[in-house]
Amino acid sequence: MTDAPAAPAVEPFDVVDVIRTKRDGGRLADEQIDWVIDAYTRGVVAEQQMAALAMAIFLRGMERPEIARWTRAMIDSGERMDFSTLSKPTTDKHSTGGVGDKITLPLAPLVASFGVAVPQLSGRGLGHTGGTLDKLEAIPGWRADLSNEQMMRQLESAGAVICAAGSGLAPADKKLYALRDITGTVEAIPLIASSIMSKKIAEGTAALTLDVKTGAGAFMKDEADARELARTMVELGTDAGVRTVALLTDMSAPLGRTAGNGLEVRESLEVLAGGGPADVVELTCALAREMLEAAGVRDADVEAALADGRAMDSWRAMISAQGGDVDAPLPVAQHVEEFRASEDGVVTGLDAMGVGVAAWRLGAGRSRPGEAVQAAAGVEIEAHIGDEVKAGDVLARLHTDTAERMPRALESIAGSWTLEAPGTEVPERRIVKDRIA
Amino acid sequence: MTDAPAAPAVEPFDVVDVIRTKRDGGRLADEQIDWVIDAYTRGVVAEQQMAALAMAIFLRGMERPEIARWTRAMIDSGERMDFSTLSKPTTDKHSTGGVGDKITLPLAPLVASFGVAVPQLSGRGLGHTGGTLDKLEAIPGWRADLSNEQMMRQLESAGAVICAAGSGLAPADKKLYALRDITGTVEAIPLIASSIMSKKIAEGTAALTLDVKTGAGAFMKDEADARELARTMVELGTDAGVRTVALLTDMSAPLGRTAGNGLEVRESLEVLAGGGPADVVELTCALAREMLEAAGVRDADVEAALADGRAMDSWRAMISAQGGDVDAPLPVAQHVEEFRASEDGVVTGLDAMGVGVAAWRLGAGRSRPGEAVQAAAGVEIEAHIGDEVKAGDVLARLHTDTAERMPRALESIAGSWTLEAPGTEVPERRIVKDRIA
Repeated sequence: MTDAPAAPAVEPFDVVDVIRTKRDGGRLADEQIDWVIDAYTRGVVAEQQMAALAMAIFLRGMERPEIARWTRAMIDSGERMDFSTLSKPTTDKHSTGGVGDKITLPLAPLVASFGVAVPQLSGRGLGHTGGTLDKLEAIPGWRADLSNEQMMRQLESAGAVICAAGSGLAPADKKLYALRDITGTVEAIPLIASSIMSKKIAEGTAALTLDVKTGAGAFMKDEADARELARTMVELGTDAGVRTVALLTDMSAPLGRTAGNGLEVRESLEVLAGGGPADVVELTCALAREMLEAAGVRDADVEAALADGRAMDSWRAMISAQGGDVDAPLPVAQHVEEFRASEDGVVTGLDAMGVGVAAWRLGAGRSRPGEAVQAAAGVEIEAHIGDEVKAGDVLARLHTDTAERMPRALESIAGSWTLEAPGTEVPERRIVKDRIA
Repeated sequence: MTDAPAAPAVEPFDVVDVIRTKRDGGRLADEQIDWVIDAYTRGVVAEQQMAALAMAIFLRGMERPEIARWTRAMIDSGERMDFSTLSKPTTDKHSTGGVGDKITLPLAPLVASFGVAVPQLSGRGLGHTGGTLDKLEAIPGWRADLSNEQMMRQLESAGAVICAAGSGLAPADKKLYALRDITGTVEAIPLIASSIMSKKIAEGTAALTLDVKTGAGAFMKDEADARELARTMVELGTDAGVRTVALLTDMSAPLGRTAGNGLEVRESLEVLAGGGPADVVELTCALAREMLEAAGVRDADVEAALADGRAMDSWRAMISAQGGDVDAPLPVAQHVEEFRASEDGVVTGLDAMGVGVAAWRLGAGRSRPGEAVQAAAGVEIEAHIGDEVKAGDVLARLHTDTAERMPRALESIAGSWTLEAPGTEVPERRIVKDRIA
C-alpha cells in the first residue's frame, strides 16, 4: 500500500518500506538507517513502528556494516563529549551486567590510582541485576548527578568519576532502550552492541575495556552468543578509533558473596582494603590491567595498589568529591532472615539468577524505571561454590526493610544451591574465560 | 527482566512473556491469546507491544489452533450480529481485494434476486485497491451508514445491503488492522485470515463465499500463499459453523475495463443490464452460484437473472433503500487524457499493480484513512489482454478532477502493457483458478 503515496512526501523515506526491507531479510541502506534513527528521535517514526522494526532486527539480524551505521546514527542523535583536554589519558569500561557485579566500585578508583582518568557514566538497575548508581547511593550523601564541568574537574582531581549519564548522549538509544525493554526486543546482539557502543563512543573515551558476561545470571546465557556480542562491540569500538578489548567472564554464579546495594558497597570496601572474595579480586585486577594497558600503563602492579591503600585513597577522593560521607556507617536492613541447608554436602552450583531475583524481590532492584530501591536490601551468601556445609548451616542471609517481601524472595533462592555428596571434587571456577581484542 | 516482578501483578500475564514466546518460535497458550487480545482492546497492552507481537507472528507464524483461538478472541472483543430472525437464508462473500474488483456491486443484487439475504458489511479503500463503499458513494444520495435495524429491514425488503461495518464488530481487529497498516505487518496469513474471518463470523452469516485473489495486483502475489490463506479461512469458517467456500481467482491483470469509483459503478450497471466485460461476468456468476448453493438454492440460472433484468431490479431496490438516486447521471471527471500505443502488437500482459497505482494517483484512492476520494477519477482500459492494437491507438483513458495528478499517474501506467508481435497467440485467461471447500 505504500509503494506510491499520492500525497507529496515530506520525509525522504517511508518507514513501512524500511520495516519491510528488514522484515524480508534485506540489508538496510545507510541512508535508511540514518533517516530512521533521526526520524524516531524527532517522533516522526512512531513507537509502534520502531517496535516492529526492532522485532524484525531481532529475528532477521543485521550485518556488520548495518550495525556500525546504526551505532553512528545513534551517536549523531545527540552530543559528544571530549576528554582530550584532560592532562591524563582516559580509560573506560563497561559490563553487560550480572548478579553481584560490583566490580566498577573497586575498579574505577584502583585504575585511577595509577594516574589515569576513569569516567564511568553509569545507569540504574532494572530487574534482577543491580545498577552501579543504586549501589553508590547507599552511601550517605553521595550524588549521582554531575554537570560536565564538575565531571571534568573531578577527573583531574580524583581521577575517577562514577556518575549518571546526561540525557544529551545518544538520546535515540535512550528512547530505543526503553522501547525494547517493554517489547521483548532486548536480547538481540546488534541492538545490544549498538546501544552500549553508541553511548561509549559518544562519551569520548580513548580506550574501552568490555566485561561481557555469560552464564545463567547474564543476559547472554549462551557462551557463543556472548562471544559474538564481544566481537561485535570490539569491532565497533576499533572502527570508531577507540582502543577496545573485551573479556568474556563467567556469570553462572553470583560474583562475590553479596547481591544488593549497600551490601555490595561493603564488599567493595573489603576489596579496596586488600581483602574480599577471590573472584571479585581476580576480575577487578584482570579488568584493571586491561584498562591500564589500553591507557599506556604497562605491567601495573594492581594487587599492590589494593594491598597498600592507594586504591582506597582514590576511592575516598572519588566518593567525597560527589558528597559521599566515606566514614558514615552503611544502612542496615530492618529484617534479616537466614536460609539454611537441609542436608550435608558440598556446594557444586549456585544459580546466579535465583540469587539475583531474590535480591530484586527483597527490594534491591526495581520493576519499573523510576521506582525507589532499598539501600540495605539484598542477599548475603554464606556458602558459595566449593564450600562444605552441614544440615542446618546458614546458606544465605536475606535482608529487607519490608518483611512481606521475604516469602517470595525465599521462594526464589530456595532452589539456587546444588549440593553434592561431601568430599565431591569441585572444579575451580575460571572467572575470565577469554580475551577478545 | 520480567521473570518475577516485585510489584503485585494485576494482570494474569506479562505481555513481554507473550511476545517472547512467539519471538522464540513457541506456541501461544489459549489463555495468553485471550488475554492479549482483551488487554490490547482495553489499552493495557500498548500499541508498541502489539506491534512487536505482530512482527513476531509475521516472521514465526501461528499454528492452526492458535489462529482459531486468535480469531475467536477478536470476535469476543465485540458484539455479534444475528440474522436468524430473518425470513430468508443469509449468504455473504468477501474478496481479498484487487484492481478493478467491482464484483460486489453486481453480485449482491444478483444473489438477492433469488430471494436470499445478502448482508455485505464493507470498508473503504486504502492504497491501490478501491473500497466498495467509495465506489457506491459515486452514486448521488447513496449513504453507507445504516443502523442494525435499518439493515435488517432492508434485508427483508430489498434482500441486499452493502453498508459500513459498525464499530461494534470485532473492535480488536479494527485496532489491530490500523496498527498492521503502519508497521509493515499486513501480509501475514494468520493475521489476514483472522482479521477477515473474525468480522465475518461476528457478522453472523450462515454461509460465506471467499474470493481469494492471487497475482501482481493482489496482496498474495504468490499462488501458494493465496491457496494457504484460502485453506486457513475455509477451516476457520467451517470450525465456527459457517458454510465456507473459497474461489482462488486471478488478479494478474485488472478485472474488467475500469478502475475507479464512478467508472466501476458504470461497468457494474453494464453487467446488471446483461452486458459488461466477460471476465467480470464470469466471476460474478461463479461467485453467485457458490453463494446461492451455500444458501440452499441449487442450480440457479444466474445468467438468466442478469439477462432478464431481475438482478437490475434488485440493484435499484438496494440503492434506493439507501438514498441513492438510481437514475441520476454518474459524475464525470474534469480532465481526461488518452494514453496511446507507440507500436503495433497484441496485448499479452496488463499489469494490475500499474493500473491500480495510476487510479490511486488520479484520486480514486487514498493514502491515509479518512482522506476524501474523487468519485470520477480512475482508469478506463481500452486495450485489454488479447486485443490487437496499432501504434497510436488508445490503450487507456485517465480521468481526474486534479490535472496535476496526471503526470505521476501516466508514469505508473506507462509500463503496464506487454505488447508482442501482431498475431501472437494469447492463452485464454482463466479467472477462477481453483475452488477450496
